[in-house]
Amino acid sequence: MNRFRDRVETIREMMRSRGWDAVVLTGNDPHSSEYSAPRWHQVEWVSGYTGEGDLLITDDHAGLWTDTRYFIQAERQLEGTGIELHKTRVQGQVLIPEWLSKHFYGYDEVVIAVDGLGISATSVIEIREAVGRDRTAIANVPDLLSPLWLDRPDIPCTPIITLGTETVGWSRIQKITWLRRWLNENDCDAILLTALDEIAWMLNVRGQDVAYNPVVMSYLLITPDTAQWFVRKGPVPEDDHETEDSFYELISDGVNIQDYSDVGMALAGMVDDDYIRRLFVDPATLNYDLYGILRENTLQDNVKTGKSPVAQRKAVKNEVEIAGMKEAHLEDGLAMERFLYWLERMVEAGEPLNEYECSVKLHGFRAGIEGFRGESFETISAYGPNAALPHYVTPKEGSAEIYANGLYLCDSGGQYLFGTTDITRTVPLGPCTPLEKEDYTLILKGHIALAKVVFPKGTAGCQLDVLAREPLWNTKRNFGHGTGHGVGFYLNVHEGPQDIRQNFNRQPLLPGMITSDEPGIYREGRHGVRHENLVLCVDAGENEFGRWLRFETLTLCHFDTSVIVRELLDDQEVKWLNEYNERVFRTLSPRLPSDIASWLRKKTLPI
Amino acid sequence: MNRFRDRVETIREMMRSRGWDAVVLTGNDPHSSEYSAPRWHQVEWVSGYTGEGDLLITDDHAGLWTDTRYFIQAERQLEGTGIELHKTRVQGQVLIPEWLSKHFYGYDEVVIAVDGLGISATSVIEIREAVGRDRTAIANVPDLLSPLWLDRPDIPCTPIITLGTETVGWSRIQKITWLRRWLNENDCDAILLTALDEIAWMLNVRGQDVAYNPVVMSYLLITPDTAQWFVRKGPVPEDDHETEDSFYELISDGVNIQDYSDVGMALAGMVDDDYIRRLFVDPATLNYDLYGILRENTLQDNVKTGKSPVAQRKAVKNEVEIAGMKEAHLEDGLAMERFLYWLERMVEAGEPLNEYECSVKLHGFRAGIEGFRGESFETISAYGPNAALPHYVTPKEGSAEIYANGLYLCDSGGQYLFGTTDITRTVPLGPCTPLEKEDYTLILKGHIALAKVVFPKGTAGCQLDVLAREPLWNTKRNFGHGTGHGVGFYLNVHEGPQDIRQNFNRQPLLPGMITSDEPGIYREGRHGVRHENLVLCVDAGENEFGRWLRFETLTLCHFDTSVIVRELLDDQEVKWLNEYNERVFRTLSPRLPSDIASWLRKKTLPI
Repeated sequence: MNRFRDRVETIREMMRSRGWDAVVLTGNDPHSSEYSAPRWHQVEWVSGYTGEGDLLITDDHAGLWTDTRYFIQAERQLEGTGIELHKTRVQGQVLIPEWLSKHFYGYDEVVIAVDGLGISATSVIEIREAVGRDRTAIANVPDLLSPLWLDRPDIPCTPIITLGTETVGWSRIQKITWLRRWLNENDCDAILLTALDEIAWMLNVRGQDVAYNPVVMSYLLITPDTAQWFVRKGPVPEDDHETEDSFYELISDGVNIQDYSDVGMALAGMVDDDYIRRLFVDPATLNYDLYGILRENTLQDNVKTGKSPVAQRKAVKNEVEIAGMKEAHLEDGLAMERFLYWLERMVEAGEPLNEYECSVKLHGFRAGIEGFRGESFETISAYGPNAALPHYVTPKEGSAEIYANGLYLCDSGGQYLFGTTDITRTVPLGPCTPLEKEDYTLILKGHIALAKVVFPKGTAGCQLDVLAREPLWNTKRNFGHGTGHGVGFYLNVHEGPQDIRQNFNRQPLLPGMITSDEPGIYREGRHGVRHENLVLCVDAGENEFGRWLRFETLTLCHFDTSVIVRELLDDQEVKWLNEYNERVFRTLSPRLPSDIASWLRKKTLPI
Repeated sequence: MNRFRDRVETIREMMRSRGWDAVVLTGNDPHSSEYSAPRWHQVEWVSGYTGEGDLLITDDHAGLWTDTRYFIQAERQLEGTGIELHKTRVQGQVLIPEWLSKHFYGYDEVVIAVDGLGISATSVIEIREAVGRDRTAIANVPDLLSPLWLDRPDIPCTPIITLGTETVGWSRIQKITWLRRWLNENDCDAILLTALDEIAWMLNVRGQDVAYNPVVMSYLLITPDTAQWFVRKGPVPEDDHETEDSFYELISDGVNIQDYSDVGMALAGMVDDDYIRRLFVDPATLNYDLYGILRENTLQDNVKTGKSPVAQRKAVKNEVEIAGMKEAHLEDGLAMERFLYWLERMVEAGEPLNEYECSVKLHGFRAGIEGFRGESFETISAYGPNAALPHYVTPKEGSAEIYANGLYLCDSGGQYLFGTTDITRTVPLGPCTPLEKEDYTLILKGHIALAKVVFPKGTAGCQLDVLAREPLWNTKRNFGHGTGHGVGFYLNVHEGPQDIRQNFNRQPLLPGMITSDEPGIYREGRHGVRHENLVLCVDAGENEFGRWLRFETLTLCHFDTSVIVRELLDDQEVKWLNEYNERVFRTLSPRLPSDIASWLRKKTLPI
């Protein structure tokens, strides 16, 4: 019998013995991070499914909820588990709260168990509202799976470093002062930061607690005269001087270091002592366990909820951060061009080569850069039909062989001490079909439309998204993911609050924000195309119609022109492309070996 | 002293004697209609300002709140009144609720007076929430201004007609049956319809109670076995056979006719009698006076609020309505072409001519069409700098003279028994400046981009709006109004729930919905350009990427090509334009006199 089917059954036994009607499990850590350390891969442990998604188990149903990006992967991985796939971000979707509400229609009482550490307050509140506040009892069981999951990993605890103002521009004292002013203006006297990237940004610290995301598992509580960082469990190992030095630096800046597990008690105590009159929290990243502690120990009026002010402030990069990001893109571009040159040589020579070897090679080029700290996410190295999976995971063993025809897609990025990159290139490796060429060109057309738009101050990403899609829509093609996500500064490669997608996110794009521009197309069993650069929002002057903004492309790596269907691009688009490729050549070639530089010269000739 | 300054002072006296801290006045009728009969031109009576907007008076401040469309007009009309203009739909806007909240910061109690008949429940709730529910007392004074406004007009009471299924497709019995099914599905047993166009649509009746909007002042209460129409005050005049026949027809269809003023008593009584278990109302068009009656007489659970289901159902036109709209656009197009031909002859001949005479002439051409019931809004006939006012009102006396140079803008529409039209043409009358030509071409470029887009099912108007703006944005030009509004079937020329504008309206565009496509540009003191057609949303098939929709242009009237800057349009846009003009010629010329037909042939030759 399927191992995962067993695990679902074991959970059902637990449910029966405790009187629970449903269990909701997520892959979230206690901070609602987009990606979590292995300890919180709860959905994967139960189901074997390795993508993003939430799990719901009742007496007679087990379901996994995930979005368009993961449908194919989920169907494959859930086979034989008895767990049903529920599709989200599609027309007629039924999300977990609504599903529960329908399933338990007519029940007098419903007990829904959650691991309060692994689910946000917002998610639980939504469930309770949907099922009915009066008849829903939430059983909060921290570390719910631990009794069953015997080899469950520990809370991560990796070395910590600090970044200086020469790198990040703003010192932690400046940031804390800014946040205290914000508290004052917003009639609050404390804020609990729970999002890991917000805390790393505030304190100018970085760790490696989550793969690819250089964050430190912690909470940060700021009041008008204290800053308490709840972090790591044990003492610093003797040979970890960086962490020790980091703590000294923080302490000398007035940051009080406390144990990660003490945050709940500290909060309860502070409220009891009337120390906190009004505490601000962001329920989207506050876990339900801490939310419960606050609810039990405070009056409604003592807690103010809302979007954390740190998110937007962090997303608007300052001049020092922007300079670092440009440097990162220059270095990253050199690595990419070396890689693409190597790839072409290998393919031309008919050397045996698979997807995984490509990702290893690319890693090697990046690893040679001073200040490289690892990838910013798991490299997607995908050939042919595999590229039709937008979030393909390249397997170490048995990845696809690459041949001298069709399209190879590589989506990758680096973390550097001075910035973060994220780039996708789709590379023709030889003869391509007319459809591959058309898709390649139309996606580039969409990419360019967004890259060169000028827009009024106040415009939100969702009001621009269609520009990248319209060239596709006109021939009835489309893609099921967003066009752009925010990118952190040597931080998470996905960050808010801005994005560029078909949603109704009102957050305006502000000068200093960095987002991706990555339209794509995915044809199951055939091929996939995505063209991705990072773009910086910059001022474009003022006139009688108001103030204007535009994007400046940060990514430096040529687009292959050999499969472009020229007549699908207009003159403005060709001009943009030629200028971009020329800029890539001029910027990178002085730092490339002469054979790669002359290859790049040919690759970037105007069309 | 300024007459309007006096009126504000008189209101302040009333405020002092009654203990009110503020008075909020709108130009709304008791149904929150976009346009109201003269009885409810309260803002105009107090301030002299004739556009849309709301008025707020306190002890030491009088302010008018209105949006970008009316800034120039409001500044002009408010001069000397002591009333300050508050700008809305601009960055950093402070709307009335927020302004009140700031103004009365620190007050223990605030009494805000409203005319409950002339303001929606939603607006009052917003004010109370912003100022603080506990400390805000709303003084509801129906007909608040009547004691001061001695010659205040009566509630309108115009003849009523009915429309048959050969015109509207769906009988009133079918519509009532559909709404009863909706009530059942939504766990309600009564719905009070308050929006006048929804009522007219439901009962297939039309009146002339509001200028340009063929509605009847009334309320409609539907339960599983009754339909009560609360309408007009007096008996039907002897010679008004149409109204008498209409009432007979409605009664024979099971509609109970009651007096307009009895709706409140009826509601209170029904609820008292436990007759209504759950009543559905839309608070956006329910006035605060009726809301108060419901609140006093019902438990919270007895009233369910939400968006009226009739709005979306009405917006999706059926086949009979679509056929009627096409007929209306054919007839209206013939009138427009006759007018444009006449205009060109007049200007060429150097005949003295002013804006108002043009609108009278255009009216004459439309009035010759069988089934014409009047304009669908007040014609904007604007020459030169006057066209820079997007909502210019052409004065009867002293309108601008028209000469053989520059641009003339005419925005007009007709109400026909079989449909409603709304069209704007900007016409070069002779030599134009390079800027006029560029603006003319870029606005057309934006118009075409929207007209020819193909988009996935589920797309909302706000996700398409940028297509009409991008050609402008690229040269840092913009316009401050929406790109498209819904249009009724022989009903209001503005209707929801869909629109195409820079908002976050989630309503998807559905096949059968009709909207305008009308980008524009306005250069104060110089010129204005707007190109407007109505477009019908239609199905465009299905493929592996899902279901697709597109627009079909309904309006039939050529675009002048003489001032187009060819190089600003791409081949696809020129193709669209040539095909559109050719379609206009082929459709209209067989029904035009030969001199106009051959003129139109020349006007529509491909560029």
